[in-house]
Amino acid sequence: MFLRLALWCALAMACGAAAAQSPPISPNGVRTLSPPGAIKVEGTWSLGARAGDLIFVAGMQGVDPATNKLVPDPEGRIRQAFLNIRLIAQSEGATLQDCVRLTIYVSDLAKVAPLVDKVQAELWGKGPYPPRTMFEAKRLFDDDIIEIDSVFYARRKQ
Amino acid sequence: MFLRLALWCALAMACGAAAAQSPPISPNGVRTLSPPGAIKVEGTWSLGARAGDLIFVAGMQGVDPATNKLVPDPEGRIRQAFLNIRLIAQSEGATLQDCVRLTIYVSDLAKVAPLVDKVQAELWGKGPYPPRTMFEAKRLFDDDIIEIDSVFYARRKQ
Amino acid sequence: MFLRLALWCALAMACGAAAAQSPPISPNGVRTLSPPGAIKVEGTWSLGARAGDLIFVAGMQGVDPATNKLVPDPEGRIRQAFLNIRLIAQSEGATLQDCVRLTIYVSDLAKVAPLVDKVQAELWGKGPYPPRTMFEAKRLFDDDIIEIDSVFYARRKQ
Repeated sequence: MFLRLALWCALAMACGAAAAQSPPISPNGVRTLSPPGAIKVEGTWSLGARAGDLIFVAGMQGVDPATNKLVPDPEGRIRQAFLNIRLIAQSEGATLQDCVRLTIYVSDLAKVAPLVDKVQAELWGKGPYPPRTMFEAKRLFDDDIIEIDSVFYARRKQ
Repeated sequence: MFLRLALWCALAMACGAAAAQSPPISPNGVRTLSPPGAIKVEGTWSLGARAGDLIFVAGMQGVDPATNKLVPDPEGRIRQAFLNIRLIAQSEGATLQDCVRLTIYVSDLAKVAPLVDKVQAELWGKGPYPPRTMFEAKRLFDDDIIEIDSVFYARRKQ
Repeated sequence: MFLRLALWCALAMACGAAAAQSPPISPNGVRTLSPPGAIKVEGTWSLGARAGDLIFVAGMQGVDPATNKLVPDPEGRIRQAFLNIRLIAQSEGATLQDCVRLTIYVSDLAKVAPLVDKVQAELWGKGPYPPRTMFEAKRLFDDDIIEIDSVFYARRKQ
């Protein structure tokens, strides 16, 4: 009897711990994403969300997760933004090749677009590359040079 | 024979009426949304569309549906934009927690972003919050301070 | 026997040709789109991608596929951008009525928005029209007047 109670307590505690750690689920089954190793979120947004077979990733800047600061040099910062996106996508089973949409906001097309092409060629290899839109915004958070919005596709596990 | 014709006529009229009232459906089953109580649309766009399990909402400004005018004070206008979005989402069975993506266009990040955070905290409660991108556009319709683009997820009824 | 071999060879060649021509598929089944007649892509992006029942189209400018140059007059250029989008959507079985989202980046709302309305009314007929967001970007590629981002819905063939 005591053993049974002890087992039940252990089970309840385990379930409680699991519930506390598992990601929040919306009424319709949207799962909020916060994979280990990702940048910290401050404010009223989340890194990403899975809904059905789609993974929506928040606008990403080139913040280094180790320091929570923007990477200083432009090319490194652009690479970091893509790496931050990739970490979130991979946590849901999506590769960069499973990206279905990139919207890239930049401070200066002439300066930043060539670096974006260079970094994408490095990360995606010989392609194919995802559909993309890139344009100059008037201003980004932190007067940054780039922010990248993305959507990925990866079948959810049944 | 006469009865048959009469029945056919009644059926045809009923179908015609149903077609006129029911929302338009595209060749592939996209349903255009125009729920009661929503703002009026002028021009070549619609408030929203459902396709499969996704609900796409048009860029929303802080227009009061009662007056069809922008709410005067900034915080109230931002709240109204979110309420306009929520009305469309809820008409398809989606809550704010089922939002999978917010793209927020603002006139001035320094002035508007803190108000967005405040209003979202109020409307979403303790979260989780959807993935978000926010940046300054050069100009919005009506020289407005905010416009919000959104996507929601809610399984369609079988 | 000889006939059989000849048939097998013809079949193998046909399959080989089909495989060479068929679009690349990602690990999760995203299909990159490059339909005949579309504009040429230069750089690290693709015209579009199909994932499940959704078709994501890259930001489109009013480039004439015949010359690979921007159409000179503004209204013609805007129409061409929509025609470029329609070609990609139709290659996957989607009509303009199956569009679920338009994001329209313009150089000048006062000048360009009325032309967008006019061209959409012409192409979509009496509607319904898709949900839309339109705003001024600080700058587009080629200092262009318009770029259009779009998503369509069309059930994939089983």
